[in-house]
Amino acid sequence: MRRREFLATPLAAQSKEVKALAFDVFGTVVDWRGTIIREGARWGKDRGLSVDWARFADRWRAGYGPAMDKVRKGILPWTRIDDLHRLILNDLLREFRIEGLSEEEKDNWNRVWHRLTPWPDAAPGLARLKQRYIIATLSNGNLSLLVNMAKAGGLPWDAVLSSELFRHYKPDREVYLGAADLLGCRPAEVMMVAAHSGDLRAARLCGLRTAFVWRPDEYGPGKGERAPEGSSDIVARNFQDLADRLK
Amino acid sequence: MRRREFLATPLAAQSKEVKALAFDVFGTVVDWRGTIIREGARWGKDRGLSVDWARFADRWRAGYGPAMDKVRKGILPWTRIDDLHRLILNDLLREFRIEGLSEEEKDNWNRVWHRLTPWPDAAPGLARLKQRYIIATLSNGNLSLLVNMAKAGGLPWDAVLSSELFRHYKPDREVYLGAADLLGCRPAEVMMVAAHSGDLRAARLCGLRTAFVWRPDEYGPGKGERAPEGSSDIVARNFQDLADRLK
Repeated sequence: MRRREFLATPLAAQSKEVKALAFDVFGTVVDWRGTIIREGARWGKDRGLSVDWARFADRWRAGYGPAMDKVRKGILPWTRIDDLHRLILNDLLREFRIEGLSEEEKDNWNRVWHRLTPWPDAAPGLARLKQRYIIATLSNGNLSLLVNMAKAGGLPWDAVLSSELFRHYKPDREVYLGAADLLGCRPAEVMMVAAHSGDLRAARLCGLRTAFVWRPDEYGPGKGERAPEGSSDIVARNFQDLADRLK
Repeated sequence: MRRREFLATPLAAQSKEVKALAFDVFGTVVDWRGTIIREGARWGKDRGLSVDWARFADRWRAGYGPAMDKVRKGILPWTRIDDLHRLILNDLLREFRIEGLSEEEKDNWNRVWHRLTPWPDAAPGLARLKQRYIIATLSNGNLSLLVNMAKAGGLPWDAVLSSELFRHYKPDREVYLGAADLLGCRPAEVMMVAAHSGDLRAARLCGLRTAFVWRPDEYGPGKGERAPEGSSDIVARNFQDLADRLK
């Protein structure tokens, strides 16, 4: 049934006016969980650590929403994601009883988020989409994180846009409307691309078009969102499929 | 004598810590004057206009500093360069007695700044520099202008940074320091690249490294700045030469 939904989704007529595609990044473009597990296993082996790296990755990611909420509630001042990741990491190192790390090691491990591996279809799909559309990140990751990630992963963005530019995290309206404004577009001329219904719902409420991309293994094998809650102009299997549908 | 200066400029030892290059764009990366003359001549011929397009280009560019000053003095609210260009254009159309244009024609002509042609060495030089450094714009042009220009001219920026992000124009300090901060760099890890001494002087006062690039024809044949006033870590003939010197 879900499969049929993928095949049947037509390109909404209004999508023809789309000029720019704005991409969620963590989970949609890059595989945060797989990368952390792989790097953790390699690093842990060197250090003789016995850690469940899948659990470590999931806990790190799980800390991120509550950390942003602390900023939203004014408990923390505006904080870039690198620093939120580091606050969460400090707690995790205690929780997983990883001790004796130098500041440099902690900083390097925190910057694993700058080195996340793209899903295999991401870079080639973006290269196709770039021929016709402005392609931009629209991520809660800070700008330098996204720039370093793009260089490491060969992601050919036309513009790197981050919540940092607006001092608001997604799903706050300021991020979606601010991105459209910077790109010189009306909201309806921007299509938000994400593997997460919450992100797309917020974008749609701001008047953006939306494309759901299926990342079935984001939270572990078969544990990603399988279909968007609510409507979406496009539902695509991956970025190559998205390029086919937008042709 | 000037020629010897080019050949003798050594790479300052401190420049080894440079991680990111921030580029001025109008005049440094793209030939605003030549593009406006060429487009103007073509457009004027179609419309049967007799206009000195070199003078038109120079007058348009000359209006830009005073227009930014109106914003600095609070006479105008924050205004993106597209809109400043349009205000100046409205005056120029009267001055050059160009009449009867539709809004669409005026808008299209105003957007010539989105289509400025890169100097011949710019795109290949940037491609070399990108292999080793983060390469970013740092221009008073608004973000969408710079993104459209990069797509049209094949400029492979890692990040498109604009005065628009800081609501300050160069040479205000906020632009240079804000760019270093967004790139996750200390000021000394960023090198400002420009064909204009004023831009480099302001960057240096903020602690950035500087590279002067010679654009001898920017204001007409032989009328560009020939050498920087004051010191510069690097003086280069063009972007290929800059890549050679930074190797």
